[in-house]
Amino acid sequence: MTYYYARTFAQPFDQVVAATREALSQEGFGVITEIDVRQTMKAKLGEEFRPYVILGACNPRLAYEALQLEDKVGIMLPCNVIIQDAGGGRTEVAAVDPVASMAAIANDALKDKAAVVGEKLRAALDRIEG
Amino acid sequence: MTYYYARTFAQPFDQVVAATREALSQEGFGVITEIDVRQTMKAKLGEEFRPYVILGACNPRLAYEALQLEDKVGIMLPCNVIIQDAGGGRTEVAAVDPVASMAAIANDALKDKAAVVGEKLRAALDRIEG
Repeated sequence: MTYYYARTFAQPFDQVVAATREALSQEGFGVITEIDVRQTMKAKLGEEFRPYVILGACNPRLAYEALQLEDKVGIMLPCNVIIQDAGGGRTEVAAVDPVASMAAIANDALKDKAAVVGEKLRAALDRIEG
Repeated sequence: MTYYYARTFAQPFDQVVAATREALSQEGFGVITEIDVRQTMKAKLGEEFRPYVILGACNPRLAYEALQLEDKVGIMLPCNVIIQDAGGGRTEVAAVDPVASMAAIANDALKDKAAVVGEKLRAALDRIEG
């Protein structure tokens, strides 16, 4: 079992971040959290880190439905999409596979919902032009 | 396998949110993301929801070490702690068990790191006075 769906692009980091935001929006996901890992590591630890952001993607309707099925599913929300500098001018985008991250939750209806969300996340990544 | 560690308190929601933030800080976690689920559901869907927040807790040093072990572990970061109105004047706090959420990642060194983080999250919740 893999826990993500990833694609690599021969485009610079900032361009891929913008394209990922647009693709997520087109599939109904808002970005409700954002962590600049490079900036955080520099500020908190003084460590250098490659360009790396964590976008928290959320489809409000699907999140609402998931919360009706499993009251503590907020522990697994939002669905993260990471974008990192992969070296050599390449940029990698990877979205969580919610079926994998929620595998420890014994709730069949939730698994079905997670599969729907996972398909939408993959569809978003597939929209990004390489 | 459970995917969380939870405690319930006979104190109002806002008070438990404040106590949880303080307890996380004492165990070395910063809160780097925050989602007000009630507000989001009202704003995006017009739906009523009980008081419910998702705090994204991160210990920068442990996150840095985890990223050295598994470049895409950002997909599972930060570690969420949820606080929700449990009815009857009670408030529930639940922290992710990172060993469970990261079970789909085949990386033994990361599992050891996840166990350390999980212990610190449980210690934080145990600090909250009931």
